[in-house]
Amino acid sequence: MPRFALQVEYDGRPFAGWQRQADQPSVQGAIEDALAKLEPGPHTIAAAGRTDAGVHARAQVCHCDLQKPWDAFKLMSALNHHLKPLPVAIVGSSEVDEDWHARFSAHERRYLFRILNRRSRPTLEEGQVWHVAHPLDVEAMREGAKHLIGLHDFTTFRSTMCQAASPVKTLDELSISEVPTTAGLEIHFYLRARSFLHNQVRSFVGTLERVGAGGWHPDKVREALEAKDRAACGPVCPPHGLYLVGVGYPDDPFA
Amino acid sequence: MPRFALQVEYDGRPFAGWQRQADQPSVQGAIEDALAKLEPGPHTIAAAGRTDAGVHARAQVCHCDLQKPWDAFKLMSALNHHLKPLPVAIVGSSEVDEDWHARFSAHERRYLFRILNRRSRPTLEEGQVWHVAHPLDVEAMREGAKHLIGLHDFTTFRSTMCQAASPVKTLDELSISEVPTTAGLEIHFYLRARSFLHNQVRSFVGTLERVGAGGWHPDKVREALEAKDRAACGPVCPPHGLYLVGVGYPDDPFA
Repeated sequence: MPRFALQVEYDGRPFAGWQRQADQPSVQGAIEDALAKLEPGPHTIAAAGRTDAGVHARAQVCHCDLQKPWDAFKLMSALNHHLKPLPVAIVGSSEVDEDWHARFSAHERRYLFRILNRRSRPTLEEGQVWHVAHPLDVEAMREGAKHLIGLHDFTTFRSTMCQAASPVKTLDELSISEVPTTAGLEIHFYLRARSFLHNQVRSFVGTLERVGAGGWHPDKVREALEAKDRAACGPVCPPHGLYLVGVGYPDDPFA
Repeated sequence: MPRFALQVEYDGRPFAGWQRQADQPSVQGAIEDALAKLEPGPHTIAAAGRTDAGVHARAQVCHCDLQKPWDAFKLMSALNHHLKPLPVAIVGSSEVDEDWHARFSAHERRYLFRILNRRSRPTLEEGQVWHVAHPLDVEAMREGAKHLIGLHDFTTFRSTMCQAASPVKTLDELSISEVPTTAGLEIHFYLRARSFLHNQVRSFVGTLERVGAGGWHPDKVREALEAKDRAACGPVCPPHGLYLVGVGYPDDPFA
């Protein structure tokens, strides 16, 4: 039974998230339905990261098992045909060993969060950025972010719904850059870790925005972290600036 | 009667174009309706470029006449409030002389056309790029584009609906760049001229795409131009990769 790794791009807006749910559109459901057009189901696919409602992906990774020996490229084209007109596209496809697992084989997840920082609300970027109208002090946000990098108990920055066994994780990178665009200034948060807790990125960005706006001293981020208390977190920011941009594997199936 | 210049960004998808039309949504109509919330109308605004259905703008420019001495910044905020939730935003506002005219004072229009050049169809960029799935030879397109720069009779490259008095125009710039993005390779066409004919940019890009795909030799662009015959044009490409990105004035009101 051949196994295929799929790299998936999607616009998260019309979906209740990655995970299949009864009576709600999901990205997983859309791909499983497309697979059922190729071979009779039921199909159950596993993904590297279960993104929330409204969260986008450039390079989500999932795997599926099929009966027939598909050519990986033809499989991608056939799935894209059946995914139309949903805003989901398979952008990479590769046959993998049968013990390869999109979630358990992954050793790194990479996220991007985009803030559009200008007075006027977004038009072309609506639903793809978090709009912040007041000025942000990027240097202060970087100071605050430094406290979060490394091995910590991230209880403060995880949703009370989080199902991870432990709140202790290592954040390998949290870098913040100012990106001039034709729409104005964007502020990009780039995060990299073996794995993330539920709502961790949005809890970080919502908290760091408070620092950038001047409401929080950068050191208050350290205090919040050390409190190990969800109540010490800043506001959780909206989902629609968040993108799963990459998943790392020891032996990248899409390289 | 104070006159204000407004710089306008919009997503062209939900509109039948810039120009107000009976029973069809238009960007002009949206802004005139917002103005009527501030001061009793009717209001009639004039724009630098009347974009077609599906064409976007980063920096369209129009002007309006008001009764009251508005603060330009407050006017922008009030209009943006009333434009919600339409994907139209006033991103610049400035009081100008009463003989200043958004269309007639302009001495330059700048357009960007975006091709997303990858196998899989777009998701997050749907409606904001022209998707071309086959490889394009950018160097060949540049060779073809050279024939179009300068003063020419552009009869071949204008819509039969074009109302301009003369097909003779000067194209100051048509540069083509390869832009790597998180979605894959984009090809950007940047065009600059005092003014453009109806469908001129889309006629250029549709023709140059044929060159990039290998169907046309670059010299065929010169032959098409010299034919001064609409029938010699390549296919007119779709509108949704096109952006009005700037309008030049002798004394920039937004500088």
